[in-house]
Amino acid sequence: MQLKLLLTGSELMTGDTVDSNSAMIATMCLDKGIQVSYKATVSDDLAQLISEIERISQTADVLIVNGGLGPTSDDLTSEALAVVLDSPLAFHLGALAHLNKWCAERNYELSDANKKQALLPKCVDLVANSVGSAVGFKAVHNDCLIICTPGVPSELDIMLKEQILPTLSARLASDVHPKRVRFRVFGYGESNLQQQITETFSDWPAEVELGFRASLPLLEVKLKVDYAAHHALLDLWKTKIQGLLGDHIVTEDARPIAQVVVELLAKNGHKVTSAESCTGGKIASLLTQISGSSQVFEAGFVTYSNAMKVSMLGVSELDLNSHGAVSETVVRQMLSGALKHSGADIGVAVSGVAGPNGGTDEKPVGTVWLAWGRAENISARAFYFPTGRAIFQKIVSALALDLIRRELLGSIEQPAYFVSRQAK
Amino acid sequence: MQLKLLLTGSELMTGDTVDSNSAMIATMCLDKGIQVSYKATVSDDLAQLISEIERISQTADVLIVNGGLGPTSDDLTSEALAVVLDSPLAFHLGALAHLNKWCAERNYELSDANKKQALLPKCVDLVANSVGSAVGFKAVHNDCLIICTPGVPSELDIMLKEQILPTLSARLASDVHPKRVRFRVFGYGESNLQQQITETFSDWPAEVELGFRASLPLLEVKLKVDYAAHHALLDLWKTKIQGLLGDHIVTEDARPIAQVVVELLAKNGHKVTSAESCTGGKIASLLTQISGSSQVFEAGFVTYSNAMKVSMLGVSELDLNSHGAVSETVVRQMLSGALKHSGADIGVAVSGVAGPNGGTDEKPVGTVWLAWGRAENISARAFYFPTGRAIFQKIVSALALDLIRRELLGSIEQPAYFVSRQAK
Repeated sequence: MQLKLLLTGSELMTGDTVDSNSAMIATMCLDKGIQVSYKATVSDDLAQLISEIERISQTADVLIVNGGLGPTSDDLTSEALAVVLDSPLAFHLGALAHLNKWCAERNYELSDANKKQALLPKCVDLVANSVGSAVGFKAVHNDCLIICTPGVPSELDIMLKEQILPTLSARLASDVHPKRVRFRVFGYGESNLQQQITETFSDWPAEVELGFRASLPLLEVKLKVDYAAHHALLDLWKTKIQGLLGDHIVTEDARPIAQVVVELLAKNGHKVTSAESCTGGKIASLLTQISGSSQVFEAGFVTYSNAMKVSMLGVSELDLNSHGAVSETVVRQMLSGALKHSGADIGVAVSGVAGPNGGTDEKPVGTVWLAWGRAENISARAFYFPTGRAIFQKIVSALALDLIRRELLGSIEQPAYFVSRQAK
Repeated sequence: MQLKLLLTGSELMTGDTVDSNSAMIATMCLDKGIQVSYKATVSDDLAQLISEIERISQTADVLIVNGGLGPTSDDLTSEALAVVLDSPLAFHLGALAHLNKWCAERNYELSDANKKQALLPKCVDLVANSVGSAVGFKAVHNDCLIICTPGVPSELDIMLKEQILPTLSARLASDVHPKRVRFRVFGYGESNLQQQITETFSDWPAEVELGFRASLPLLEVKLKVDYAAHHALLDLWKTKIQGLLGDHIVTEDARPIAQVVVELLAKNGHKVTSAESCTGGKIASLLTQISGSSQVFEAGFVTYSNAMKVSMLGVSELDLNSHGAVSETVVRQMLSGALKHSGADIGVAVSGVAGPNGGTDEKPVGTVWLAWGRAENISARAFYFPTGRAIFQKIVSALALDLIRRELLGSIEQPAYFVSRQAK
């Protein structure tokens, strides 16, 4: 089924409003196995609306028009559809009844502006709106089912669920049963992961669509098949990808990495702490953004200056002077101090050069030392992320959480980033 | 000038990604007086890309194509443009040089996947990308300037500013000289500010367009005129708005509130500290995201549990028990402790109920106490933000920074939120 969208609204063209309605439509339709294949966006301009409805209806099976159903003079969808259908505007009795009922329930008087919402092309059928004043309406043109929907997200949401998705599902060919698997992966870039998959699996089947979506700090890997006959194939290749990626897979759902960590800590009755220099509180902030984190996190230490590493965490001044703040010795001592003062049993410490200033030949901008683990078993490593300050802090904070995650899982495999992101 | 957009990316069609790039393009172009008149979105599908580039170029003066420049097999913009232009793909020497330089700077090896980013239609000109690996490129077809740009927002942002906007401005009619003023305001919602402006200024001139954009935690207020003859009028009304809003105006540029605070601290030779409970490190993280923050910030304390408020900050256990963690007494003691232990001369302390759990009748979810100021002069107040956990933490962190900002400015006026957001 060719499902296409046409969005209308001047606020969508000026950039004042970011269009989230089309993502809502796409996500809901995809859940029913219907992919949106095209979308166009125009401002509240009658000529453009007419020509786009006419044009898109020529190649679509279903065209959802979103927006332009309101009571004001810049709401033009009904007028445009009347021209396309060559069907004059007239007050629709069903729409008027809906408006009267809607106003009566709210003790509003039906204004002339609102009444305009019942002025529809004569030949359309109504699409009920159970929450708002604007009814939807539909008609067939060029063998395409055109459905006009309101721009208010809450009204669109209900109309999709109650009216439109059932209509579309009924039209769907019975052999289409899409199935999809998503992995959220930490520690791989899109291009190197694609290369690794291509090199490992020369026999990748054409029926299983492989896709990637970079969503820093995680990379989403998607596998998809369209037909029920291929579901077993999907399961097989899901297992193969799981085997290849191992603990690089953080989740198979949409949870952020901090939530995975908080849940693992809670499950095992652990408490965590953080001692942060270059990440400046971001690790603590990511953890405490998770509801329920108070069960597993009592304190974090933001020791940005050397003096504070000494006074708050008990780092040796001598070692700071001889090794520098960005060193294995110092991050190990930072973590020991944080574990001692917080009473947590697991933790992570970070010290690095976020930039843009402060780099040296030996420790260029992007160098970072991390220490992680438990008081009796602290590991430490240096990594190199020459990006920019904001991305550096984002990646290093996620890396810190990932090291805790692997510690909690008892991972024995070495993550790819131990090699790919090793400091020089 | 007819400026049209074509966005490509399967993630835009599935609803996985909400398209914010087109809003970025539209906003920046509008600042230069150029309105986007149309946009279409397609998935990573070669045939669709080819037909849309061909079709839109027939009616546009400029077509910006966004996305599909990456290294993976689903990045197809270059291949599509080669077909449209009837110009075969070849390795572009300038693009290869850019890629080699980009990799060398990062100590990466140039992979075959990355090298694909230099495979461009023979007849295109490069559009420099000063931050990322993917170069942009442009060519004229159907009398339309087609500019292909990267989908990564930070790279698109720089390319627009450095390359594309100057090109478009040069093409613009000479009588249009738009001028725009933006204020970024903390402490007002869109509807109450609009109401206040309407009530205060009944004589608002039609030539000056007034707009708002909510960009949590700040509200952007925009004034705009289109012609040189109205520039003086814009300046006059700019002054009036400045008078009305006073220190509620955080910046007249795009700096985040944390940067304004860091710059004020640095200018006055102050050092700041934070003692955070419900914001969990976010205030420290916002400050340390600013380059140069090490001059003004040495330490932050994330004391999430009561025990840590006692051991790290010296809060009285007795007071914690009698007043509760969310109380004036406790935030005052948290701030005193943080100032003493960090050696900072100014600071802020926060304790509140972020939710969703932990609320009581007396202190419902959304209640927060803040203390701010200097050791010898600490102020404290309770506020109420019944939103959700994530937005609560975002607003309260910004509020903490705003209180520091006002302290540094020596503001004597009382901010609107002292009244509008007062705790019950």
